[in-house]
Amino acid sequence: MPSDPGAPPDSGVAPLPIIGVVRSARTELADTPVQSAVNPDEEAVLELDPAYLDGLLGLDGFDYAWLLTWLGHRDQPPGPPSLRQVPFLLGRQTQELGVFATRGPRRINPIGLSLVRLGRIDGTRIHFRGVDVVDGTPVVDLKPYVARFDRPAGEVRCGWFDSVAIAPGATPRQLRGPLEP
Amino acid sequence: MPSDPGAPPDSGVAPLPIIGVVRSARTELADTPVQSAVNPDEEAVLELDPAYLDGLLGLDGFDYAWLLTWLGHRDQPPGPPSLRQVPFLLGRQTQELGVFATRGPRRINPIGLSLVRLGRIDGTRIHFRGVDVVDGTPVVDLKPYVARFDRPAGEVRCGWFDSVAIAPGATPRQLRGPLEP
Repeated sequence: MPSDPGAPPDSGVAPLPIIGVVRSARTELADTPVQSAVNPDEEAVLELDPAYLDGLLGLDGFDYAWLLTWLGHRDQPPGPPSLRQVPFLLGRQTQELGVFATRGPRRINPIGLSLVRLGRIDGTRIHFRGVDVVDGTPVVDLKPYVARFDRPAGEVRCGWFDSVAIAPGATPRQLRGPLEP
Repeated sequence: MPSDPGAPPDSGVAPLPIIGVVRSARTELADTPVQSAVNPDEEAVLELDPAYLDGLLGLDGFDYAWLLTWLGHRDQPPGPPSLRQVPFLLGRQTQELGVFATRGPRRINPIGLSLVRLGRIDGTRIHFRGVDVVDGTPVVDLKPYVARFDRPAGEVRCGWFDSVAIAPGATPRQLRGPLEP
């Protein structure tokens, strides 16, 4: 399906090649933990498109990887995302933040960034722990986590997150009740 | 321009909305450091599209952010990327690795992930340190760095990177001589 690169992507259709799909036990966005770090033990599988098998050489030497996902789910609200949003992690508070100061999924480009712990790799089935996406989520890239590149030295300020308590396994429904339409 | 979502993106044309552009002092890929972490002090500016100004609310509370860039430069080789590549960081060695075990720019989806240190924000001009992209590089997303989400606990294995020495400011030309065509 043609897409207009100047317009926000259609919900549900990634305008990029999909390298694979996540198979997880989560089926409802409202009941899916908001970050892999709050749900670090749950397992899922990245089913890589077999055409890309050769791209995995050497990945088994890494403990962690970045999963870049496409979050333009069909069940997300239509239309462009608001530039100011109340993050799920603020629960029932009403403080708005700019979308580029949040990690929420409703973005200009709904690309998710999940740090996952790599497990067994069986051919094109990459087992991992740390689940924050629903079953069927398209994956657009996989990058190894490299501590020298990805870990800033010392204590770092993390804005509004620094004053938020996050319960293990927190989901949108737990944080705020049923999702708004 | 329409794009076929099943095919690799055209070089130079991002199939996604561009939220802004990096203004850096680097003009040649071959002379641009391969990672922001190896060039942490150099300054650059993300010029955000003014339409997205409201998306910055609250970003000034963060020390670091992830810059997601589109690396389909017009001066990159045409055609789909090889699934096995010799990373620049291996210098003149010839060991091939799978593209999903590297952080190189020639990927199925050429999305760059750069950890940058945020500086002054003047309206839509976001100053930062840590430059690994050439002037004019399109930006597709900006996410705050959140230590609780993005920093795995303890020592982590980082595959082939664990046995590679990386010189400060390393560029492709320093590592391997002129880029291949």
